[in-house]
Amino acid sequence: MLVQKYKQMLSAKSVIRELSEFATARGKEIGYDNVFDYSLGNPSVPVPQQFTDEMIRLLREEDTGKLHGYSPSLTIPSVRQAVAESLERRFGLPYRMEHIFMTSGAAGALAHAIRLVSEPGDEILTFAPFFPEYHPYVDLTGAVLKVVPPQCDTFQINFDAFEELLTDRVAAVLINTPNNPSGVVYSAETLQRLADILRRKSEKLGHPVYLISDEPYREIVFAGVDAPCVSSYYDNTIMCYSFSKSLSIPGERIGYVAVNPACEEAKTLIQMCGQISRGIGHNCPSSIIQLATAKCLDLTADLSVYETNMNLIYNELTSLGLTVVKPGGTFYIFPKAPEEDAKAFSLKAKEYDLILVPGDSFGAPGYFRMAYCIDTDKVERSLPALRRLIKENY
Amino acid sequence: MLVQKYKQMLSAKSVIRELSEFATARGKEIGYDNVFDYSLGNPSVPVPQQFTDEMIRLLREEDTGKLHGYSPSLTIPSVRQAVAESLERRFGLPYRMEHIFMTSGAAGALAHAIRLVSEPGDEILTFAPFFPEYHPYVDLTGAVLKVVPPQCDTFQINFDAFEELLTDRVAAVLINTPNNPSGVVYSAETLQRLADILRRKSEKLGHPVYLISDEPYREIVFAGVDAPCVSSYYDNTIMCYSFSKSLSIPGERIGYVAVNPACEEAKTLIQMCGQISRGIGHNCPSSIIQLATAKCLDLTADLSVYETNMNLIYNELTSLGLTVVKPGGTFYIFPKAPEEDAKAFSLKAKEYDLILVPGDSFGAPGYFRMAYCIDTDKVERSLPALRRLIKENY
Repeated sequence: MLVQKYKQMLSAKSVIRELSEFATARGKEIGYDNVFDYSLGNPSVPVPQQFTDEMIRLLREEDTGKLHGYSPSLTIPSVRQAVAESLERRFGLPYRMEHIFMTSGAAGALAHAIRLVSEPGDEILTFAPFFPEYHPYVDLTGAVLKVVPPQCDTFQINFDAFEELLTDRVAAVLINTPNNPSGVVYSAETLQRLADILRRKSEKLGHPVYLISDEPYREIVFAGVDAPCVSSYYDNTIMCYSFSKSLSIPGERIGYVAVNPACEEAKTLIQMCGQISRGIGHNCPSSIIQLATAKCLDLTADLSVYETNMNLIYNELTSLGLTVVKPGGTFYIFPKAPEEDAKAFSLKAKEYDLILVPGDSFGAPGYFRMAYCIDTDKVERSLPALRRLIKENY
Repeated sequence: MLVQKYKQMLSAKSVIRELSEFATARGKEIGYDNVFDYSLGNPSVPVPQQFTDEMIRLLREEDTGKLHGYSPSLTIPSVRQAVAESLERRFGLPYRMEHIFMTSGAAGALAHAIRLVSEPGDEILTFAPFFPEYHPYVDLTGAVLKVVPPQCDTFQINFDAFEELLTDRVAAVLINTPNNPSGVVYSAETLQRLADILRRKSEKLGHPVYLISDEPYREIVFAGVDAPCVSSYYDNTIMCYSFSKSLSIPGERIGYVAVNPACEEAKTLIQMCGQISRGIGHNCPSSIIQLATAKCLDLTADLSVYETNMNLIYNELTSLGLTVVKPGGTFYIFPKAPEEDAKAFSLKAKEYDLILVPGDSFGAPGYFRMAYCIDTDKVERSLPALRRLIKENY
């Protein structure tokens, strides 16, 4: 018989996807250029030329059997080596290839990380506001995602609520900094306090509570903001990275798990990833994508447009009197809606062809998300609509 | 805590991998050219030029944002459409894009297919000899793989044993034709009888017992052999395909699930694949690989070397008096070992630098597998060693 849990998921449509589909449909009526679509977190800047050049070079020069052949079960050694060297150079932790496992994006990395440390029934804690896909990522493993309520004035961590929810059933804590949807970067102070609590809890339990650090926005950090390296604060950290945003290649599904060299049994965790892969049918990202990405590790696409867009929107929102925490990175902003019901607000916004995602599914009702990974020109053209929306309704 | 089931898997090394590592090590001593390595099923023929040309064209001509952007959650529509048209043209079944879901190879396809139709505790039946990776593929979903003993004189299906094992707990039957490791192609008669039994059982149960058809070797079929289309025989068939062997691109991880249009709720199954993906972190194969493959659907690499190699080996084995079923396709052959213990035979073979895999892990003790996806020159040079092995020991 068809498995009901997957069938039932079909009727629960994602709000983000529904809004994105509305935007596409509306675009067919009035031209997509006139729809101010802030729904999807799809990178909008071009892929670095060096990535394209390296792909073409590989296709032209390499033996096709080797180029397109099977990866070893722990992924391509030269690629793992290059990632380890880049991480060590950048963060000063002694990463070696034995700490790296290449994955199909951050989704693939999280799929491995969660299975490494949690049995069905175990709890994974995350902090609101959070990426709603964490629910299927965690729930479908059999573990249970529990959400710590937000600290709304800063979108750092609500530590009181965290300590209350950090029971003996918690196998791992999942964080995302810079954060989708708030754009906030966790401060050194936040990470230090988080690490202290996890160390105390691990000691009490006699085994580590793991920290899974989802870092796809690590390279999108704005001027004057310090984005501390999460792994530096806590030994038992499993870093999950994706090149989707840094190189604008989300469709190529490339990222990695990097286990902190100081983690207990660090190298065993990576070997276990190879076994988990067999069960989930992951079996390595594309070989050519692994090889080309390895040549672009210290590069990014030109990400400056995201900061330009953020400043335009942030200034407009504050001048309109909305409450909003200034993003430190990403291409998201998460203002407080001017009425309690953010869904009602999102409905009104649609009338102005503004596509804004209510924060309910991010664990923060009353807020809304704008994904400003769109052309600056469109951002500028959207501001009068935003102004009218607020002035005519609130 | 680290999840023990994955940790324990680390100590259970695959026999195939161990032999392959031995072959590599021995190659360092005497030159890999002198090791007759029949261990791994790695395609040995070049990738078709058209695939490479299409990759380069995409990289040169397409907008990078679109080319490397996110796939929709059910994978790229134009690619699904092209696959459906190709399948309809070839097999005469009315496939539409709604029946197709692109996956990261056959491993990815099987990961989805198994989860579509089985809950933890359900049984999946397969037929010996079988690909040993079916164990982690099935067991790690929580379902239980049960193996029907082989019909050794033909390596078709042992129907008496099958009917005995086809209990009410069986959610699906998993077949692989052309078969790894036997090279045998299931006949029309076999498929007809299998379908009849499944139909009767489904009727009795009041819900379908699904047929999962793993077909990565579909394009490697030898002269005079008829390879019937499995889906034509049974409505509730989920086809799992991979381009790894047909295009020699196993590292690029590209394949698909194709649900028989006549299957109950066929389109729902494909939509469910999109939900399963969220849980296993699969989220579509590489975009550029999907697009390039869609232009090569009716192509294959030059696969003729596999038949040349098969004939050389088959003739040698029979002239040495070994019992062997002649392969109808693939790049495998599965002879009976000249002594009862195929592991002992494999050990003796090593002394002649012949790397032969004992059949125990394929569910057929007493047999051994040779993967002849190697240069014909090497096959020819290996025959005297094979002759000496047999003549000096048996």
